[in-house]
Amino acid sequence: MSNKKTFEKQRLSTEEYASGIISGNRVILSQAITLIESKLQTDNDLAESLIELLLPHTGKSLRIGITGVPGSGKSTFIESFGKLLTSLGKKVAVLSIDPTSQLSKGSILGDKTRMEELANDPKAYIRPSPSGNTLGGVHSRTRETILLCEACGFDVVIVETVGVGQSEVAVRGIVDFFLLITLSGAGDELQGIKRGIMEMADAIIVNKSDGDNIKKAQQTRQDYVNALHMFPPASSGWIPQVHTCSALYKEGLEEIWQMIEEYESQTRKSGYFLKNRQNQNLQWMKDILDYQLKYDFFHSAPVKQNIGELEKQVMKESIPAHKAARILLKKFRENH
Amino acid sequence: MSNKKTFEKQRLSTEEYASGIISGNRVILSQAITLIESKLQTDNDLAESLIELLLPHTGKSLRIGITGVPGSGKSTFIESFGKLLTSLGKKVAVLSIDPTSQLSKGSILGDKTRMEELANDPKAYIRPSPSGNTLGGVHSRTRETILLCEACGFDVVIVETVGVGQSEVAVRGIVDFFLLITLSGAGDELQGIKRGIMEMADAIIVNKSDGDNIKKAQQTRQDYVNALHMFPPASSGWIPQVHTCSALYKEGLEEIWQMIEEYESQTRKSGYFLKNRQNQNLQWMKDILDYQLKYDFFHSAPVKQNIGELEKQVMKESIPAHKAARILLKKFRENH
Repeated sequence: MSNKKTFEKQRLSTEEYASGIISGNRVILSQAITLIESKLQTDNDLAESLIELLLPHTGKSLRIGITGVPGSGKSTFIESFGKLLTSLGKKVAVLSIDPTSQLSKGSILGDKTRMEELANDPKAYIRPSPSGNTLGGVHSRTRETILLCEACGFDVVIVETVGVGQSEVAVRGIVDFFLLITLSGAGDELQGIKRGIMEMADAIIVNKSDGDNIKKAQQTRQDYVNALHMFPPASSGWIPQVHTCSALYKEGLEEIWQMIEEYESQTRKSGYFLKNRQNQNLQWMKDILDYQLKYDFFHSAPVKQNIGELEKQVMKESIPAHKAARILLKKFRENH
Repeated sequence: MSNKKTFEKQRLSTEEYASGIISGNRVILSQAITLIESKLQTDNDLAESLIELLLPHTGKSLRIGITGVPGSGKSTFIESFGKLLTSLGKKVAVLSIDPTSQLSKGSILGDKTRMEELANDPKAYIRPSPSGNTLGGVHSRTRETILLCEACGFDVVIVETVGVGQSEVAVRGIVDFFLLITLSGAGDELQGIKRGIMEMADAIIVNKSDGDNIKKAQQTRQDYVNALHMFPPASSGWIPQVHTCSALYKEGLEEIWQMIEEYESQTRKSGYFLKNRQNQNLQWMKDILDYQLKYDFFHSAPVKQNIGELEKQVMKESIPAHKAARILLKKFRENH
């Protein structure tokens, strides 16, 4: 990172970070997120104290997960939808999880360019998140980043994923409402999307409903309504809705926001909203433990030395899976 | 167990179990499964050697997972479908995973009673499996039990679950073909079933398509066809099918068997069938490791002493999830 030096120079105390964030200072927010994403132990300790200080100031935003079929115009949707929200007086943070960012290292610029209008909006804040290989593809600190944004006064935090990997399940576990952007074309366009994502969605949006495409989009909407009708009900009690919109021409976006507000009001009344967040907190702790236990195991020398050969034997069934597992556990425990 | 003494008296050597099973001896098969399900370490060691001896004789059956909405007539379906298969000369084993069996202890009798006709068929073998709390509700030995049945010469192994818990995901990971039994009524009857199961199914069967119900069942079938059309394609390349049948009047069952045979032939040709089994083997080893690592952690004294209070604090957000996880990991490592 070219700005590492600057960042180190500017390191503040936990209290200075906290008061800066609470006062709404974006520069300090960005520095704190970098701190949270850091791999240095001293940074992690500082970040943890910071989160603890900020916890009483968090929780007030609506957390929305958005994923989309490649080519569905997800960026345009987030930009137009974000602009609608800022025009309603809302402060909006967008956290983009880009699984390719680790490779290309170019996503920060890329993300800012593709949502230029929103990036220049003083009420909006866009922050790409490296995806990492941890916790189902979601950077283990994305959840903490949501908390920082909330302490900084954002009313809506949008977490964006690409819909092709493992990250959606993890994102579903850190947001209140989950939205899938798709296109007309009845199924064919879902080629790129992972199975199971549809059943996680609180709403499906058929985008690019404009010009000659309106009729087709409405037909696709009806197809999805029928399909969702065959799904088992969600534990939230919410019946997933399907909307058409044109993000490009900014049509149909108000209805989508109204729906999300309706969801919040309905689930707050039922008690699901709060209960879900509490369960998410707990699950988050368990996911961290799960990840760390596996990390210690699979990165230990005796396991790394032996697992390759054992995996081969298990795959071709020359030894039983139980035996291979037992051998690895024994070697791990002897060295631990 | 009342027959524990008898069982102990009858304990054989690994080689005797193996040759008994390979020769098709059902009594020895049953004893070996009991051995596999045993919680005694000496039994487990014996079971492991047995599996290893038998591995070259396994893999030849078609493994079918069947789950169903409560009230869908799943038992009747399995009985009629099993009878169809035995009439075609196939040897059929049915392993029922009953999550209630641990409580009631009455499932063995219950299962045998509810599939009486099949239970009395010399070509069929029915074995209820305790669900256990391990590996997503599937008894960690169900997979090994499949292997034993294969070594014993069964051509089709059916693994039955109840469709309301975690076990379906685990069962999906140990079978070749996964079948969901449902009823007409478009969605309402899915109340009891877990979300996500529909997207795992290779086929959906609308049962009780008889008498006045035929028209409604056919309409429901069409609704499911339309709904599945909106799903992303499966990695097998197989397009899930929807069939109606009457398990009670034994109508429509041949078509279902033909479909499953078509699935096997298609995926064997594409190479998916074998690749999927190899991946399942590997995943099974990982699931065992995952389970054992978590078991060691959550059952250790320092974790058991502290986790309750920390969970409460995490839920009400008085400490960050990362901090709670770090505290638990530290305590665990100090004592390990």
